[in-house]
Amino acid sequence: MYKNYAVKDWSMDRFMKLAFRLAKKTDPFPNPRVGAVLVKDGQIIGTGYHRKAGMPHAEIEAIKDAKKKSRRQNAAKGAALYVTLEPCSHTMKRTPPCTKEIVANGIRRVVYAMKDPNPLVSGASELRDAGIVVIGATDEKEARKINRRYLANISKKPFVVIKMAMSADGKTATRTGDSKWISGKEARGYVHRMRASFDAVMVGANTVVKDDPELTSHNKKSCDPYRIIVDGRLRLPLNARILRNQDGKTIIVTSGKAPEDKIKKVKRKADVFVSEGDGVDLSKLITALGAMGMKRILIEGGSELNARALEAGIVDKICIFMAPKIIGGRDAKPVIGGLGIARMKDALALYDTKTKKLGRDILLEFSVRRRQPQCF
Amino acid sequence: MYKNYAVKDWSMDRFMKLAFRLAKKTDPFPNPRVGAVLVKDGQIIGTGYHRKAGMPHAEIEAIKDAKKKSRRQNAAKGAALYVTLEPCSHTMKRTPPCTKEIVANGIRRVVYAMKDPNPLVSGASELRDAGIVVIGATDEKEARKINRRYLANISKKPFVVIKMAMSADGKTATRTGDSKWISGKEARGYVHRMRASFDAVMVGANTVVKDDPELTSHNKKSCDPYRIIVDGRLRLPLNARILRNQDGKTIIVTSGKAPEDKIKKVKRKADVFVSEGDGVDLSKLITALGAMGMKRILIEGGSELNARALEAGIVDKICIFMAPKIIGGRDAKPVIGGLGIARMKDALALYDTKTKKLGRDILLEFSVRRRQPQCF
Repeated sequence: MYKNYAVKDWSMDRFMKLAFRLAKKTDPFPNPRVGAVLVKDGQIIGTGYHRKAGMPHAEIEAIKDAKKKSRRQNAAKGAALYVTLEPCSHTMKRTPPCTKEIVANGIRRVVYAMKDPNPLVSGASELRDAGIVVIGATDEKEARKINRRYLANISKKPFVVIKMAMSADGKTATRTGDSKWISGKEARGYVHRMRASFDAVMVGANTVVKDDPELTSHNKKSCDPYRIIVDGRLRLPLNARILRNQDGKTIIVTSGKAPEDKIKKVKRKADVFVSEGDGVDLSKLITALGAMGMKRILIEGGSELNARALEAGIVDKICIFMAPKIIGGRDAKPVIGGLGIARMKDALALYDTKTKKLGRDILLEFSVRRRQPQCF
Repeated sequence: MYKNYAVKDWSMDRFMKLAFRLAKKTDPFPNPRVGAVLVKDGQIIGTGYHRKAGMPHAEIEAIKDAKKKSRRQNAAKGAALYVTLEPCSHTMKRTPPCTKEIVANGIRRVVYAMKDPNPLVSGASELRDAGIVVIGATDEKEARKINRRYLANISKKPFVVIKMAMSADGKTATRTGDSKWISGKEARGYVHRMRASFDAVMVGANTVVKDDPELTSHNKKSCDPYRIIVDGRLRLPLNARILRNQDGKTIIVTSGKAPEDKIKKVKRKADVFVSEGDGVDLSKLITALGAMGMKRILIEGGSELNARALEAGIVDKICIFMAPKIIGGRDAKPVIGGLGIARMKDALALYDTKTKKLGRDILLEFSVRRRQPQCF
């Protein structure tokens, strides 16, 4: 009841109208148009808008503006922030999360026009947790209108590729779990180059626990993709290499099953998304990553993540690096685990088969749905 | 002691000398030179030699000769047979086993110069079981000399190819055991044509129990390869399709674990080789098949026979028919079972990788040892 009343009360406030005017000044596509106004004692003390991708977000620009105008570092203290989009709570590229800046600058009230379309990045709840009064979404319709292009772009499902390495008999590890190395040098080099063309590389907790990979492209740093760890129970060790890399590109996705204290510890080193329920819903995760602007995601999972991704129907392409080796063993690790199908006729059909030699290995490429094949 | 004495006593008997002279009359390569003399009351009543492949064996020729000369069907009754090679106990092509004819004609003594080089085809013991006095080998050296070309030819290990059909993730059946069909029509047709270029097709008992295959080439009958069933415990059902085909080209290889009465029943329908010990030694089996003149053997095993053949080191080439399908499942049937290796560095290395599209499937060919690739 209160919420509804509040929304009505705040809708198209004059400060929000100004924020919209600011937002419309430019189109920082593929980022959203966002404007922000900072108000104290009924007076506008700072304004800002997001100029272009890579530049500060509107909230940060408004805070900066207030500091510059008043020449005081604590200018925003006790102020109210009007912003056309819910402030983000995660690190995108080199921009720190806006929520942190809002809290750090002592802002007491946040009014936003539209919820962030990314379900995992709930900035509002983080602000409320910090004791800030948060009101929104006040003008969803108007905000959607100015961001049609952005919203259409992020609502496209990212193109998801699974990469697997296996022996000629479809195994990824021996019965004792040994998997180093299945592929030869050429294939491993190819994978490193492949990674640079993806926005994110996704692995499961098992891979981090067992192999402790860096998941870098080994090219120049700027090309490194995001590293996404699907870890429902948050089992990854705090000293994992993946947490040591402080480029702000590590995202841990966990669930309600993760211990609270471990979430706090991991949050100090990387972004942590907590998915609702007992497990990570991969389909929702891919939508969320798309909403973050990611277009191409590479899954380099173990046999269980591979199975779950295929079951979830999120995979567009499968790349199998087959090594000319026989591992054998009824208890050796198959390249795809999970429950699997019961009847042959339910097997997942693959299309557009391509083969390519990489040193002594063979790369087998398949698309999962009938569509124009995309190349790396 | 008795055996040694016996051998010495009979060596280069004048009848055996005649048998050797008969053997040398022609060279029925790739079959061995064999001569036979039938003696009753110190008199030669019949002689014969193996003229060429497809013609009757020397023993049969001698029996026929005796019948013709005396114009009596029971001419050979109570006679002694001198033959330069241990009589065979199995059906080769369209020739019935010589042991059966020897027993049926009431021959009472058999003297042979040289043991059959095929360890599985022990004609002597079968004759002894029938109450015939068997003496040999009396002149191994001389017999080997006249058959150098034959012996060199059969001592070559047959070229063994394993054919497997699997999904893109290395499975041959779903978790419930469903495997029909993994490969598409083109690949299945290719396998039928492939079979015609092999002397024998080998499967395990599981395949017969589960799939009840015919294992024919689907080409003209004369091209059909031998069908070899490796069935250590003789589990194949008596009404299996493979036993219905009465072309004399079905060979069941079993072991000491097989129940005696079932061996007798199966023998009525097919040749049964009983391997010594509790299991079938695949390496010895391949040597024996080579000694029978087989040059190319195709293993179409299930996951356990595949594993055993690779462990035994008998495989020269692997043909994997990969279907563009995902089966998945940690409990689904892997294409190669067995125990498997423990460490990646012990993986069996494959060479000379070739890929070929067959409809929507891919044929992956590998050789197991570094050698000139052979084609079908």
